[in-house]
Amino acid sequence: MTENDVQQRKFQKELHAGITSLILLAVLDKTGEPMYGYQIAKILGGELSESNVKQGVLYPALRSLEGSGLLTSIVEPSVSGPPRRYYQITEAGRDSLTAWKKIWANTRDYVDGILQAKG
Amino acid sequence: MTENDVQQRKFQKELHAGITSLILLAVLDKTGEPMYGYQIAKILGGELSESNVKQGVLYPALRSLEGSGLLTSIVEPSVSGPPRRYYQITEAGRDSLTAWKKIWANTRDYVDGILQAKG
Repeated sequence: MTENDVQQRKFQKELHAGITSLILLAVLDKTGEPMYGYQIAKILGGELSESNVKQGVLYPALRSLEGSGLLTSIVEPSVSGPPRRYYQITEAGRDSLTAWKKIWANTRDYVDGILQAKG
Repeated sequence: MTENDVQQRKFQKELHAGITSLILLAVLDKTGEPMYGYQIAKILGGELSESNVKQGVLYPALRSLEGSGLLTSIVEPSVSGPPRRYYQITEAGRDSLTAWKKIWANTRDYVDGILQAKG
């Protein structure tokens, strides 16, 4: 891996850390029903061939959102394997999602403005 | 500050951590000449009334980019105060900028896709 690759991975990781929470809230808000990690991962992976939100960051992010009260979870037995933890968005989570969407839109337009501006 | 405000600040902070490096490289690439921190801060602040990249994160980010070889700096005396450190983008910095712009565009479209998709 070249130094350029190292920098690229670092950038990608930092950028994605910020958006993971936003994406998870948005997905759980849209489906409107409790989902377990692998179901969420499949939705995220389906949107982009190389998933932006890798499973390695998915589970810690879900736990962190639950810790902040933006998600709740229940554990249900599964017929085909170990019990599954289902996550659902809370009222506080919906409030945060509304606020974060605005922050996202402002930030996106700001970055695009900087990148497109003439020197 | 309500719990919602706390979450909002945390989200904003994480999101901006990722884009600060991208914005700094883009600004220094565009101007094409060495600039000191306050000059850069003024350009960033001009684009948006409430600056997305606060000065508190600007200086650490510049030092980090220099440490990674994406920027170089020289210290020049100033007639009106203490010496100033001028930053300039390197060839490696331009390579990273090209790669990061693509990552940014992919990530932006991915997030917008998730936020706009029907449930």
